[in-house]
Amino acid sequence: MADVLSRIGDKWSVFAVMLLGERDHRFAELQRGMGAVSKRMLSLTLKRLERDGLVIRTVFDTVPPSVSYALTPLGRSLHGVVEALGHWAVDNQSSIEAARQRFDGEVALGE
Amino acid sequence: MADVLSRIGDKWSVFAVMLLGERDHRFAELQRGMGAVSKRMLSLTLKRLERDGLVIRTVFDTVPPSVSYALTPLGRSLHGVVEALGHWAVDNQSSIEAARQRFDGEVALGE
Repeated sequence: MADVLSRIGDKWSVFAVMLLGERDHRFAELQRGMGAVSKRMLSLTLKRLERDGLVIRTVFDTVPPSVSYALTPLGRSLHGVVEALGHWAVDNQSSIEAARQRFDGEVALGE
Repeated sequence: MADVLSRIGDKWSVFAVMLLGERDHRFAELQRGMGAVSKRMLSLTLKRLERDGLVIRTVFDTVPPSVSYALTPLGRSLHGVVEALGHWAVDNQSSIEAARQRFDGEVALGE
């Protein structure tokens, strides 16, 4: 279970699944939507999600060829769980930041 | 949001929150329950969860002193989301492994 958790818990995987849960995306759209992700990390993340059967990659024979990414049914079942995680993160971001400041303050006081 | 996601998505954090969601634990109990985690990684994980306000560390003045870890209310609110993630991972582990074998087979065939 640990390796599955490390995949689905990985932040870039979470981001990608959340975006693909809204609609299919091309690579460049995903990269824009995921802010600070590098091209290399996004490629690696998509390849891992594809290998895990969570994402499907479709090549269209346009000129030039274009590539689209979509969630598989397995990926869609994960989307619900991941979305709740994403919402929890947004809802509790300020509480966590406040906790960090208190903790760092206590550490500084040597308590 | 990304840094919060990388915390709560981190597999050892997920594991620790799942175990602490059942009951409070001492360090050694957590280490046994989390299988392959090193002492150093478990200490780091607990320190981060404490700093994020998700876990509280209590020192009891027994002889020798003993230390117990518990979820805070914020940690308990995360436990529900994380538990769903854990169950999803267990329920879909075999589908993911089957997908990985198909993918690796296709890669080997050079498709």
